[in-house]
Amino acid sequence: MIIIMSTGVSEEHIAGVEKRLESMGLGSNVSRGIERTVIGAIGDETKADKEALQALPGVEDVIRVMKPYKIVARSYHKEDTVVDIGGVKLGGNTVQVIAGPCSVETQEQMDRAAEMVVAAGCRLMRGGAFKPRTSPYSFQGHGVEGLEIFRAAADKQKLPIVTELMDVRSLDAFDEYNVDAIQIGTRNMQNFDLLKEVGRIQKPVILKRGMSATIKEWLMSAEYIAAGGNHNIIFCERGIRTFETYYRNVLDVTAIPVLKKETHLPVIVDPSHAGGKAWMVPALARAAVAAGADGLLVEMHPSPCEAWCDADQAITPDELNALMGELRGIAKAIGRDV
Amino acid sequence: MIIIMSTGVSEEHIAGVEKRLESMGLGSNVSRGIERTVIGAIGDETKADKEALQALPGVEDVIRVMKPYKIVARSYHKEDTVVDIGGVKLGGNTVQVIAGPCSVETQEQMDRAAEMVVAAGCRLMRGGAFKPRTSPYSFQGHGVEGLEIFRAAADKQKLPIVTELMDVRSLDAFDEYNVDAIQIGTRNMQNFDLLKEVGRIQKPVILKRGMSATIKEWLMSAEYIAAGGNHNIIFCERGIRTFETYYRNVLDVTAIPVLKKETHLPVIVDPSHAGGKAWMVPALARAAVAAGADGLLVEMHPSPCEAWCDADQAITPDELNALMGELRGIAKAIGRDV
Amino acid sequence: MIIIMSTGVSEEHIAGVEKRLESMGLGSNVSRGIERTVIGAIGDETKADKEALQALPGVEDVIRVMKPYKIVARSYHKEDTVVDIGGVKLGGNTVQVIAGPCSVETQEQMDRAAEMVVAAGCRLMRGGAFKPRTSPYSFQGHGVEGLEIFRAAADKQKLPIVTELMDVRSLDAFDEYNVDAIQIGTRNMQNFDLLKEVGRIQKPVILKRGMSATIKEWLMSAEYIAAGGNHNIIFCERGIRTFETYYRNVLDVTAIPVLKKETHLPVIVDPSHAGGKAWMVPALARAAVAAGADGLLVEMHPSPCEAWCDADQAITPDELNALMGELRGIAKAIGRDV
Amino acid sequence: MIIIMSTGVSEEHIAGVEKRLESMGLGSNVSRGIERTVIGAIGDETKADKEALQALPGVEDVIRVMKPYKIVARSYHKEDTVVDIGGVKLGGNTVQVIAGPCSVETQEQMDRAAEMVVAAGCRLMRGGAFKPRTSPYSFQGHGVEGLEIFRAAADKQKLPIVTELMDVRSLDAFDEYNVDAIQIGTRNMQNFDLLKEVGRIQKPVILKRGMSATIKEWLMSAEYIAAGGNHNIIFCERGIRTFETYYRNVLDVTAIPVLKKETHLPVIVDPSHAGGKAWMVPALARAAVAAGADGLLVEMHPSPCEAWCDADQAITPDELNALMGELRGIAKAIGRDV
Repeated sequence: MIIIMSTGVSEEHIAGVEKRLESMGLGSNVSRGIERTVIGAIGDETKADKEALQALPGVEDVIRVMKPYKIVARSYHKEDTVVDIGGVKLGGNTVQVIAGPCSVETQEQMDRAAEMVVAAGCRLMRGGAFKPRTSPYSFQGHGVEGLEIFRAAADKQKLPIVTELMDVRSLDAFDEYNVDAIQIGTRNMQNFDLLKEVGRIQKPVILKRGMSATIKEWLMSAEYIAAGGNHNIIFCERGIRTFETYYRNVLDVTAIPVLKKETHLPVIVDPSHAGGKAWMVPALARAAVAAGADGLLVEMHPSPCEAWCDADQAITPDELNALMGELRGIAKAIGRDV
Repeated sequence: MIIIMSTGVSEEHIAGVEKRLESMGLGSNVSRGIERTVIGAIGDETKADKEALQALPGVEDVIRVMKPYKIVARSYHKEDTVVDIGGVKLGGNTVQVIAGPCSVETQEQMDRAAEMVVAAGCRLMRGGAFKPRTSPYSFQGHGVEGLEIFRAAADKQKLPIVTELMDVRSLDAFDEYNVDAIQIGTRNMQNFDLLKEVGRIQKPVILKRGMSATIKEWLMSAEYIAAGGNHNIIFCERGIRTFETYYRNVLDVTAIPVLKKETHLPVIVDPSHAGGKAWMVPALARAAVAAGADGLLVEMHPSPCEAWCDADQAITPDELNALMGELRGIAKAIGRDV
Repeated sequence: MIIIMSTGVSEEHIAGVEKRLESMGLGSNVSRGIERTVIGAIGDETKADKEALQALPGVEDVIRVMKPYKIVARSYHKEDTVVDIGGVKLGGNTVQVIAGPCSVETQEQMDRAAEMVVAAGCRLMRGGAFKPRTSPYSFQGHGVEGLEIFRAAADKQKLPIVTELMDVRSLDAFDEYNVDAIQIGTRNMQNFDLLKEVGRIQKPVILKRGMSATIKEWLMSAEYIAAGGNHNIIFCERGIRTFETYYRNVLDVTAIPVLKKETHLPVIVDPSHAGGKAWMVPALARAAVAAGADGLLVEMHPSPCEAWCDADQAITPDELNALMGELRGIAKAIGRDV
Repeated sequence: MIIIMSTGVSEEHIAGVEKRLESMGLGSNVSRGIERTVIGAIGDETKADKEALQALPGVEDVIRVMKPYKIVARSYHKEDTVVDIGGVKLGGNTVQVIAGPCSVETQEQMDRAAEMVVAAGCRLMRGGAFKPRTSPYSFQGHGVEGLEIFRAAADKQKLPIVTELMDVRSLDAFDEYNVDAIQIGTRNMQNFDLLKEVGRIQKPVILKRGMSATIKEWLMSAEYIAAGGNHNIIFCERGIRTFETYYRNVLDVTAIPVLKKETHLPVIVDPSHAGGKAWMVPALARAAVAAGADGLLVEMHPSPCEAWCDADQAITPDELNALMGELRGIAKAIGRDV
């Protein structure tokens, strides 16, 4: 940790910082420049309280030198981590496309959807039983009954399933219906109590990026899960909030190479929620795979216009088929497959 | 609801929209302009599914005419709502300053803080027992023990208390220690299950704005609480996330007059978390009161440099005293008191 | 244009809107709903002054139905426009990679750079003679002398050149050194006087997106150029400003399919300025081509560590070669070539 | 300047940084920590090229210790600078409200406006002759003729005038009509050639903040003007661009105390463009003065509904009168006057 002192700082204030560092179990290295004095904290940076140092008189700025995340950091685990979701490997050379409808509606809809997921060559299925909706008056998902429908439909096709968890109290049901991977939604990325709970189990967790979460905050949220003992974590970029209003969110493709550098964990992309419109999905999906994503989370509905939620963002089974073809070509160009 | 059709739309697509509106129980009014055809949906807009309409062929855009929030809307309740927090009125002519430390540390610290809150002329006290921290390795608050310490300190000074709830499972403890107002933090503004739970009780809820929540989303989150039956809701603006890095967040003072127009509920401001530095607090606090805020949530610590969390953003008891003096003058200039 | 009136609006206010529309040469169609009255303006929307209508009593909101851009709109010109830059076609089936250093340094540097641009298979060269720098104390570019060096280096390799124009007073020099395409930088996207000047000539203009410009504002800036008579416009996405601080800007790939839908003009991407780091360039470049970009603007320096400006964002000639190989595979997967 | 090396950096890379610093005329101080090696550059930081250092192998991050702005910095000039605009002092104890219409329309309109500016107790007048408009098809201002009208109207009331300069080629006309203060609009904050030109003269310059400019970039733009010799600079906060769509921009009141700390130059606020609606102006104006602004730039039109531009954001003369009363009370509460 580096403490930058204000211009013209007094010796008393410098001594104050040294003393405080000492009380934190840290040494200090004072470097008196022409215009500025800079103090380097020597020792284990995790012991240093940045805010407390920042509050000391004479301190202009305090800069961390070490990264605040440990277990999820690439430096902790050099090789890429491969997460196993019900027997399907996510994070290796094969790009996995997780497809399915926004929400579980009926058994028939899910059965048809599952068939089409398999027909398109996808190996994992998504679908929402608990839906986070902006309005209390919108359809909130079928809940536990939805899990049951989803499980039944997926079992017929031998597909592992991915679905969103919103409340710690639903974990038992997730267990009962043997959900293969738990999705933590964008609005819960910093629901720390929820993160702690999924950190206590060993199910794979797909951690969506908060709508305006920085890369660092996102990594720290994964660290919450990892610190509990669950290292089966997958990052999912789903668009960030900006000033642009033409599309719902801005898909942040830069996050892909950056996360691949910072962490050993797999990174997937949700092109459906990012743009918010079905016609944008193919271009965004292709961009994600070209940028190095390990997988995609795509909304596909057997009959989008009839969908109960987000009807305008699901692609059709035919569109999914066509997209898979393009993705195979792109993956090949960068030495991967789909 | 207004449906704007694409240029050169076919009669078949227009008929498709009319048919879909009919299936939603709505009539339609087709207006064929020179360049565009526009369809107005007639009837109860809450029955209309915007996304499903947007997914229909030939539809360019769908615009809501009605506001999606009901109970929290000014049109539902013309007069300003005054919320009673343990006998103290928030939302009337008197601006309430809720002061106290970021986190509950020790009984002695809280006792001293409570004395100073009263000495400055404040009537409500804040303090955190459950702390949402970006890092799993940071101090997470004393939890239930913290509530006990806080309650004891506040009781000596007869101060109602405000503290943050992060997990539905803590509600019993909030009841046991008779927390007077529950704070929902910025990261939980769209934790819909938590909102539903605090909607089932009658304790006042201070709903902080999500870091990048729009005014509309914020109002909708309050609507979640209100829809459950609890109308004792207070909005708390605490700065939004932008591109600026000099300060932690940008205090959005425009939200104050806007909320006062859109809702009958009280609006307060947290100048401490907004700027993130103690020296910015007085200017931001004055701006908030001048813009019409009904109250403030201010971090004050008996000895800021010793604080266990956010040490650099708490003001001292002396600074709080000085600030209260300025606020009285400003409130007077706009016909209020503090 | 649609005028949405406030709840409980008076007949007098409705009549006021009708009268004002009449004074603008527009008819009106009043539709009285259960909760809201909506007035549709009939006639040529360009005659309507949105702000003036918004200022009228009883008006809640005014919504444009028509797009404010004409010449650059896809509806004005159905086929893709191909822009000719010194004999090289940009906008057709071939993706063009425009490569070269950030700034013109020496004749030798530019000669070597030009050789390497050709060696990598690129057909257009970039380089800055006039540099927009945040600090007045930074190297501001060689100016006219830089143009001379650049022209000489490019002529040896028969490469058309692209360089940035910052000031209308430099246009004569751009003519003298026969600059093939003029770049308008992100900071000048709404320098309307500059746009008007490049609209009066016929040189191709590469219009970079403003750091926080919406798609609509960007299209309107292109419309400024087009309205002057110059339709040789190329959009260049270069990253937008967001809250994220890990990378300089967020490359907005969604803008690619969106612009391809809204306009007939070519769209290219600058992956170098977007991320701000050389190691991010390949992933971003691949994503851009996969998303449908017609070209790239890539910083390549014969010896990046020696570069006089933005040294950390230029890729090496070898990295450019490797990238070109990947791009050929990606382009092929979507039916294009590089 | 502090150079943070990557974990496990080699001695060769450390030596590389030392060598490069030496070539820049700087010494180095290597501090080998347990996990990181940090190199401090010793000497004049302005000689160091941050990007070139960042491009060196083994370098993780480079942090500036000194501020990049000099003349505009508070450390350069301890006392508050007071700028004289045609005999009126801006920057002292008196808060100056600069009022007037968005654009110069007719002589009669400007005559009436000038009378009302004086009647409300304001001492400076604003009005636009050259208007930056998003659309090429909107009214672009009366240009030079507008300056003539404005000058004549203001002279009758002995009011100094403030108007926007968009193009260096208009400077002669600004001289001819003796414009008292030149406004640089938000879209031109980084039009560096324009900044250099206004730096060569001695007229006061009101520098509006770019729509998404950071505080640092804004200070650097002022430094461009100051570096040319003109120190009569006034900062004008006018709202920043965020994700919020309810209002046009978010007025950043935090910028006020921050600029007062960083620079000795006056800071004013434009509450009219920030919110974009007349009804928001009083609350924002009060907040700005309460936060410590030295002045305001307020749009007032004798008859807002008839305004040719931004009709919905101008307040009426009566509203200006009422606002001035409130501002006097607020100024008094913080020891100033209006």
